[in-house]
Amino acid sequence: MSQLDEKQRKFVDENPYVGIATTLRADGSPHSTVVWVEVENGKVSFNTARGRVKERNLARDPRASLLVIDPNNPYKWVSISGPAALTEEGADPQIDKLAKKYIGKDEYPWHSPDEQRVKVLIEPEKVSSSGFDDEQ
Amino acid sequence: MSQLDEKQRKFVDENPYVGIATTLRADGSPHSTVVWVEVENGKVSFNTARGRVKERNLARDPRASLLVIDPNNPYKWVSISGPAALTEEGADPQIDKLAKKYIGKDEYPWHSPDEQRVKVLIEPEKVSSSGFDDEQ
Repeated sequence: MSQLDEKQRKFVDENPYVGIATTLRADGSPHSTVVWVEVENGKVSFNTARGRVKERNLARDPRASLLVIDPNNPYKWVSISGPAALTEEGADPQIDKLAKKYIGKDEYPWHSPDEQRVKVLIEPEKVSSSGFDDEQ
Repeated sequence: MSQLDEKQRKFVDENPYVGIATTLRADGSPHSTVVWVEVENGKVSFNTARGRVKERNLARDPRASLLVIDPNNPYKWVSISGPAALTEEGADPQIDKLAKKYIGKDEYPWHSPDEQRVKVLIEPEKVSSSGFDDEQ
């Protein structure tokens, strides 16, 4: 199994750079959207809600890819793919933590009582990256 | 069939924003990389070379997704998916045109005589976007 090296982990976890998450529709075709991301125990994680397209896709077929790109340097990015696990455990604290990371708010401002948040954890089975070679 | 509206077309075609292209591996799992993009006759196009992973993937299964994001505003993006056609016709002029758009060079500086360039044209069967509603 491949995994993120320390530079890649820091890049994804410590910068407020969004990820492009791709899941598979029922017919197997790819569907891409933008997500907030972090790394948890070596897995790349984002947050969604029950019933959303990507949640339904992953519940059916766990295979996902996620690419995080530096907005200041489009030649610096990390792309991972692997199976995703879905859990409600810790999903509410996570969305608040991501709101802090990405928009500087202590709480996710769009919480809805009708919505069950879901934490997605992708195992980085395959990892590729660009722009890390010439780094100190 | 869905298609890009004029704001979406301009966003993808006229800004030097990279795209995240996702193709399907032999086992159907998604593989994402970064590409230069433009719009040609309503199709979203990028350039690759024979033998690269995404070219081999598309030759096997034409289904692709491509998401273009504004590096200055991660909540502004266009995501399309649909079948991709591959052609060598016009592929060399295209990579030069894209080099001009993205890095301001008249010619693509990494041309290799060993490499056959390939133009990829994706039919935007499904289109979604974010950040276009509040625009003038």
